Amino acid sequence: MSWGVDNLPYGVFSRQGQAPRVGVRHGDRVLDLAAALHDEVFAAPSLNPFMARGRTAWHDTRALLQEKLTTDLSVVEAHLVPLDQVTMHLPFEVADYVDFYCSLDHASNIGRMFRPDSEPLLPNWRHLPVGYHGRAGTVVVSGTPVRRPRGQVRAGVFGPSGKLDIEAELGFVVGVPTELGAPAGAFEDHVFGVTLVNDWSARDIQAWEYVPLGPFLGKSFATSVSPWVTPLEALPRIPGRPQEPEPLDYLRRQGDWGLDIELEVRINDEVVSRPPYATMYWTPDQMLAHMTANGASLRVGDLFASGTVSGPRREERGSLIEITWNGTEPIKLSSGETRTFLEDGDTVTIRATAGDITLGEVSGTIV
Amino acid sequence: MSWGVDNLPYGVFSRQGQAPRVGVRHGDRVLDLAAALHDEVFAAPSLNPFMARGRTAWHDTRALLQEKLTTDLSVVEAHLVPLDQVTMHLPFEVADYVDFYCSLDHASNIGRMFRPDSEPLLPNWRHLPVGYHGRAGTVVVSGTPVRRPRGQVRAGVFGPSGKLDIEAELGFVVGVPTELGAPAGAFEDHVFGVTLVNDWSARDIQAWEYVPLGPFLGKSFATSVSPWVTPLEALPRIPGRPQEPEPLDYLRRQGDWGLDIELEVRINDEVVSRPPYATMYWTPDQMLAHMTANGASLRVGDLFASGTVSGPRREERGSLIEITWNGTEPIKLSSGETRTFLEDGDTVTIRATAGDITLGEVSGTIV
Repeated sequence: MSWGVDNLPYGVFSRQGQAPRVGVRHGDRVLDLAAALHDEVFAAPSLNPFMARGRTAWHDTRALLQEKLTTDLSVVEAHLVPLDQVTMHLPFEVADYVDFYCSLDHASNIGRMFRPDSEPLLPNWRHLPVGYHGRAGTVVVSGTPVRRPRGQVRAGVFGPSGKLDIEAELGFVVGVPTELGAPAGAFEDHVFGVTLVNDWSARDIQAWEYVPLGPFLGKSFATSVSPWVTPLEALPRIPGRPQEPEPLDYLRRQGDWGLDIELEVRINDEVVSRPPYATMYWTPDQMLAHMTANGASLRVGDLFASGTVSGPRREERGSLIEITWNGTEPIKLSSGETRTFLEDGDTVTIRATAGDITLGEVSGTIV
Repeated sequence: MSWGVDNLPYGVFSRQGQAPRVGVRHGDRVLDLAAALHDEVFAAPSLNPFMARGRTAWHDTRALLQEKLTTDLSVVEAHLVPLDQVTMHLPFEVADYVDFYCSLDHASNIGRMFRPDSEPLLPNWRHLPVGYHGRAGTVVVSGTPVRRPRGQVRAGVFGPSGKLDIEAELGFVVGVPTELGAPAGAFEDHVFGVTLVNDWSARDIQAWEYVPLGPFLGKSFATSVSPWVTPLEALPRIPGRPQEPEPLDYLRRQGDWGLDIELEVRINDEVVSRPPYATMYWTPDQMLAHMTANGASLRVGDLFASGTVSGPRREERGSLIEITWNGTEPIKLSSGETRTFLEDGDTVTIRATAGDITLGEVSGTIV
């Protein structure tokens, strides 16, 4: 997997005793951008000020870095810090966090499990990308331990969740804001890059609380993101999956924003699923268009995630509730243990690759 | 209505050509706190830094101001600025915004309208304060025009909402944060004060989009708050409404956090409703306990709102969908006009009083 000049994801790192600042990953090192480029925007403890500069700056900076890291490597060599000497931080300040529900297979699986006598998809699902707001304040960087949440798991019972689950997703990070009431521009004028998201979910808390206003405490205890944000320019694009019915004008696709990215979910370093992002129904340009169609403004640092990525096959599902069919079909690990939902001590790692490009990983251990 | 020393709400104001800073309202003037108290925390353009100082600082500052504004008025006189010379701003930076659903009468009315053949209340409603996350980035200060949102109002139809509505609520503003996974302390150790909230709602967009993940674009286009945040200390407290069944331990009330506050809803300066906050079922200490029970952290500037305040009588309902029973029973204005939902040009003003204390107003005009 490549961390070469075709990749160059951005993150926020610190050396021992020093303040966090922005870097770009190259191989097993991180380039200290404030030092290498003599630009104070990279001395900030988050990507937000750089992201706010907009698409031309994103492109020019990337081109400059590609040049420096190929032809002028000796010039920046002094500013490349080995990864084992740094701590990675949350790469951006999260403004609002929205989670969509864009996988046809995921939405169909959930429908089949919870409404076995009805159509799997609800009537609105093929007409708009269903989404909701999550808790921005509990988005944490990969490696942060995840405490098993307590809550009302059913009427009259408060205790630790017995159905702690994951959701393997991609997250899209907004760099360029809009004014309230003003239309958003093109997708690539607003969205800076892509991160990996694990939207941890307590299925018992969620099932009891979620009518009629949606998920709340079943999700708000933690959402993990990868430390590296991959610029849109680095990602191979493909046409989105065909849609029927034809979306309304405001949801018409703006180009090929399908993304040919393979995810991989590991529990305790054993692969349990490989969800293919290419199977997603709604593309991220459609998510952005929908989210702003009512006049809602964007802020620097807004994060919107795809919802669980699930392909049509069992080994392509992006959540345990789907893989184990709500706990009725446990998975066997090579240790001989089985899993329905997560146990204390389990480490979940989600990785993703797009051809030669890696998006890195998002990882968390249940405590 | 009193803006005397028993009230002293905080806001953020600016004089022409000057930067926004923190003030306290006294009569028809605002006291410039950075100047009067020689404290730079009040030179910030939001209440957040002051709120972060915590409960002892809130109390001591209030006591100091009460003293200065009674016995030493001549000393601070020079720092009192007439309200007609200032612009009021959003008083705090909103971190996460949560909206609850705490009125028994409101939840019952909505249930009767939309599920006429079932129990009005869903099974979870009496067991926990139902809530969800809203869009923090579109919280605006009173006086900001509200653009009628466009959206999918039903399958295949995109256009302006034909069912634009209000929700009269109280909002609770968090000053003291918690760490992820750590328990929250007492309600009054975290919550700085109370603001008025109008949670504008597009009922047609909401009805089509909201299954299964809750309201999204039907709410996210704008949420208005009053410019003044009333400190908890200023509010008269009463016991909360009796609850059956007895709430679980973690939701046990921490004291008398019922609030005897009368709201008043005006359309184009004509009173259409007077919702009594004292009838609310879940109290704000219970909302805070619930919101953090799963380990979710609080941040400075978190806003959580009560949900629509509705009393048992028609003239006490806090939304038009309830007052007009989803448009089937229009209200007559004294002009001879009728209303089901809001028309362009309508101005909605929500005011509130607690005995002699006024909480001011939140107002907005549909454009």
